[in-house]
Amino acid sequence: MTEKTTETKVEEAQTAALRIASLSDDERSEALHAIAETIDARHEEILEANERDVREAEELLEAGEYSQALVDRLKLSSSKLDSITDMVRSVAAQEDPLGKTQEARKLDERLELYKRSVPIGVVGTIFESRPDALVQIASLCLRSGNAVILKGGSEASHSNRILFELIQEATADVPSGWAQLIEARADVDTVLGMDDSIDLVMPRGSSEFVSYIQDNTSIPVLGHTEGVCHVYVDSEADIPMATDIAYDAKVQYPAVCNAVETLLVHESVAEEFLPEIAAQYEDADVEMRGDDASRAIVPMETASETDWETEYGDLVIAVKIVGSLEEATDHITTYGSKHTDSIVTDDSTRAGLFMRSLDSASVFHNASTRFADGFRYGLGAEVGISTGKIHARGPVGLEGLTTYQYFLEGDGQVVGTYAGADAKPFLHEDFDASWNQGSLSNQ
Amino acid sequence: MTEKTTETKVEEAQTAALRIASLSDDERSEALHAIAETIDARHEEILEANERDVREAEELLEAGEYSQALVDRLKLSSSKLDSITDMVRSVAAQEDPLGKTQEARKLDERLELYKRSVPIGVVGTIFESRPDALVQIASLCLRSGNAVILKGGSEASHSNRILFELIQEATADVPSGWAQLIEARADVDTVLGMDDSIDLVMPRGSSEFVSYIQDNTSIPVLGHTEGVCHVYVDSEADIPMATDIAYDAKVQYPAVCNAVETLLVHESVAEEFLPEIAAQYEDADVEMRGDDASRAIVPMETASETDWETEYGDLVIAVKIVGSLEEATDHITTYGSKHTDSIVTDDSTRAGLFMRSLDSASVFHNASTRFADGFRYGLGAEVGISTGKIHARGPVGLEGLTTYQYFLEGDGQVVGTYAGADAKPFLHEDFDASWNQGSLSNQ
Repeated sequence: MTEKTTETKVEEAQTAALRIASLSDDERSEALHAIAETIDARHEEILEANERDVREAEELLEAGEYSQALVDRLKLSSSKLDSITDMVRSVAAQEDPLGKTQEARKLDERLELYKRSVPIGVVGTIFESRPDALVQIASLCLRSGNAVILKGGSEASHSNRILFELIQEATADVPSGWAQLIEARADVDTVLGMDDSIDLVMPRGSSEFVSYIQDNTSIPVLGHTEGVCHVYVDSEADIPMATDIAYDAKVQYPAVCNAVETLLVHESVAEEFLPEIAAQYEDADVEMRGDDASRAIVPMETASETDWETEYGDLVIAVKIVGSLEEATDHITTYGSKHTDSIVTDDSTRAGLFMRSLDSASVFHNASTRFADGFRYGLGAEVGISTGKIHARGPVGLEGLTTYQYFLEGDGQVVGTYAGADAKPFLHEDFDASWNQGSLSNQ
Repeated sequence: MTEKTTETKVEEAQTAALRIASLSDDERSEALHAIAETIDARHEEILEANERDVREAEELLEAGEYSQALVDRLKLSSSKLDSITDMVRSVAAQEDPLGKTQEARKLDERLELYKRSVPIGVVGTIFESRPDALVQIASLCLRSGNAVILKGGSEASHSNRILFELIQEATADVPSGWAQLIEARADVDTVLGMDDSIDLVMPRGSSEFVSYIQDNTSIPVLGHTEGVCHVYVDSEADIPMATDIAYDAKVQYPAVCNAVETLLVHESVAEEFLPEIAAQYEDADVEMRGDDASRAIVPMETASETDWETEYGDLVIAVKIVGSLEEATDHITTYGSKHTDSIVTDDSTRAGLFMRSLDSASVFHNASTRFADGFRYGLGAEVGISTGKIHARGPVGLEGLTTYQYFLEGDGQVVGTYAGADAKPFLHEDFDASWNQGSLSNQ
């Protein structure tokens, strides 16, 4: 059998997309349970394939081409496979994102308009190293009725192949072709060029990787580049609260995009706040880099212009003293990445001013930036975090994999009746609609 | 005074965008009323400038470079200006699209998450000929709190300039820089390249023009390319109803994107339906082009492969006989443009099957495709029609010029409390929220 071309695979996915969209909630959930069961039953095969990837990666580690972190991310175990199937079952348990009537409007008697959530169509996904990403992405797409093109990292190719085969085997009842695996690096560019057939691209990987994807496709991209998040300690801040928040936002998990990178401190509280937080940061081995005013209060390295725009992703924090709330929001507008920014203040008017002045996906009052996350927001399964403003923004749940269609149920009406001198007026009465209308029901 | 560069103009718009977003509903509406009043009071100046454009266009018409249709579209009159100010006032009267709480969720006691609608930021618009487009687009952007870059056609440059100046004069209370006019053709490419500063591009013009924009920018585009819409007359159709719908969908206004281009007819009703519609089309001078089976029933030109994918925008229609509903949906999937497709049938099960099998923005049962329109859908002011699936789809109202932000109101909470072995569980209780919460209110 010769390998299919990427174009053929994408075409098959397109055909399958129209069919998978019609599966019922139960059919999609059951298919996910079947995936979980198949993975549960076949640990041995999966771990064997994974071992080949790990062995090859370890050789490249010795040759200095791979990092230990990459090898660690690559490695599967029975307990890791258990947490993967837990995840698949939790996606199956999510509320159905499809068929929700977002609007129902009577345009006239017996002329009813419904705006309902439907799958996007074909989702192209490109991800690095972790083989669990393949299972997670395929599960999210299946739950939301989308066909999916999967392109994993070459370092995980044996693991990805066996996981993909098991998913296909488990979903024999799902319209075939709904999931497609592509393997060659060159195929990524083919996928990025297929803007007529692929409706959304979801890259998972480093900021540079996501930026590369964004710059090289005219397909909409759902992904996140960098997170340069700020905590602003206002003149009216409660200092122990500000210290707790600044500490948590940096130290609790410094490698993630919602960790704070720059601390902005109002000059009127700097002398009280900075020594407090510096003592705590010292205990946690956090390196502080400050402007001259900060360094006059607490000894630390000098922050350069570059520091203000850097996502350290590490135990390093930049510190700047500002003369006003406006100076803080100006700084954030200039150097921030519109991800998540928080103000600590007891004055709700000042909090409102701060929050309304910023164009960030998440703006917080008296809370750690680390709360910006799909699980903590209660969105259920997290599809990803988006730094775009269009379609989906901030933490994105299954809803991010849906769009909508307008359905109009008429009785033979023509527009001529509603146009011209004797035009009949429209009613335009919104009404409550149950989620599955007669002829539109999936059952 | 030297002319500002496009980059400077876009930067000014970005700064203004953060400020205009904070204007209250009333402030934005009042600014629109001021625009209407200023235009009402200054017809003479506007018509004088417009006359210069028309004179220049007429010279190019004589030289054979412009069409009469272009000159007609360009021409303003006092009554046309009246309908422009009516439109501005109707945009002012629209419900505020901003500050709507789409979700409100208690993550824990005194830790409340709000998802609220906010402006997108900076909208780049590129439009052809009609000078009323400038006023309409500026009004829609102002109503929704967005800054706007306006690039009109060079043929309307005098009209656009005076209208732009009057808008600026009338909106002296709005943060300056919210609207920017650019005039040189070369600046379009500058705008399309500014994906870091411009959040959305809205092109208005021909399909080719919109396609050009889509292919030449990585900024999200809200626009519509072509509309190859279908009416499918099912085996269970009511024939008089099918005739009325097929007639209205083609004849009522053939130049628009939601007019029908191809008629698909089930073989079991073709002998009854085709002669009926052919007689009516003949009276309206509609040219029919059919497949062999249609031509065996009614004499007409032969339809070629090209006809199935053509948006005639004229009194021409392609006709094809199909053996089944599936053949109809397959044809639509192959040749359609996912705009609007309608089935005529008395069988609601078959209607549901048709509607669920298609991936079109609008799918209709027993209604003319011409209903696919923001006004008829009751969306209020129509921002445009989108043939994209992401963000906004089909007819788009003011909502299409908004995105959302997450606002989190806390009491000093840190993520550390909710992580690890003794993690406190989240509440995740949705609640009803009034539209303007304390510190987030625009007032």
